[in-house]
Amino acid sequence: MKVYVLRLGHRVQRDHRVTTHCALVARAFGADGLFFTGDRDTSIIISVQDIINRWGGPFEIAYIPNWRVWLKKKVRDGFEVMHLTMYGRPVNKVINNIKRSKKDKLIIIGAEKVPGEVYEIARHNVSITLQPHSEVAALAVFLDRLFNGKELEKKFTTPELVIMPQFRGKKVKRVGKK
Amino acid sequence: MKVYVLRLGHRVQRDHRVTTHCALVARAFGADGLFFTGDRDTSIIISVQDIINRWGGPFEIAYIPNWRVWLKKKVRDGFEVMHLTMYGRPVNKVINNIKRSKKDKLIIIGAEKVPGEVYEIARHNVSITLQPHSEVAALAVFLDRLFNGKELEKKFTTPELVIMPQFRGKKVKRVGKK
Repeated sequence: MKVYVLRLGHRVQRDHRVTTHCALVARAFGADGLFFTGDRDTSIIISVQDIINRWGGPFEIAYIPNWRVWLKKKVRDGFEVMHLTMYGRPVNKVINNIKRSKKDKLIIIGAEKVPGEVYEIARHNVSITLQPHSEVAALAVFLDRLFNGKELEKKFTTPELVIMPQFRGKKVKRVGKK
Repeated sequence: MKVYVLRLGHRVQRDHRVTTHCALVARAFGADGLFFTGDRDTSIIISVQDIINRWGGPFEIAYIPNWRVWLKKKVRDGFEVMHLTMYGRPVNKVINNIKRSKKDKLIIIGAEKVPGEVYEIARHNVSITLQPHSEVAALAVFLDRLFNGKELEKKFTTPELVIMPQFRGKKVKRVGKK
């Protein structure tokens, strides 16, 4: 099962760090890639690629100029679309239903206002709390539910660096050279 | 049991949105307040206060000029300190131990580099994955574990607005007038 994230409406100035956080969360919590639309911002791709080089992959990161065309193609390819929104149905109510389907998943998260058509295209509109907070947090908790917490122990391939967990302080092991 | 979040090293320009996301996540996922240090940035307080006014409370948000003094006082008051860091012990291994203690909790999250003394002060250094991602996501997943997912249904007091979850689209009920 492939799990992709589509980040809508990225604005280069305002969203740089939040979109980067979304991409790193997508990677760390077990998704296979993040695709973003809005402003073309190569610095996001460079930042995330740098993390992949050092901490391992595989993970896809790319800018999508025309997300409507891209999304239609993904739907034709059999991806099940979910949209994370505070207005949707609570994740606790829908997650079992979502997990039963073994289809590839496309998770949409917005920056500011999400076009109304996204609510229609999505098979599931899912809320992570009914409160305003953060698409970064919503994505993390959704992926954590989807993968039953197992993603927390995910191993990445060909990392340069690996953390050895400590009670105090930091220990990083250099495992590969690039 | 009180649960507070301490956000270290806020920088007004770079961290505005991420710190705001941290505060909104703290509120939405059941913490009682977020306190931040670093640059004095009243716009964070205004943004979060605006959310509390519209979506309900209670929730504390404040700037702390001297976090070392403040933290020592909290420790004296009996708060158990945890520090979320990718270098710490995996949340799945420590969360049951943390939950058994009914002490008040103080959760520290950093912006950029966290001073080494924080690793020493913390009773638990906790990692949410051993990968670089986002303090926003780490905080959300940690609180979700701490509250067993029950925080997702938390009701807030005297909200002006309440969301009625929908399969499609948005429905917001106005329940109070300020």
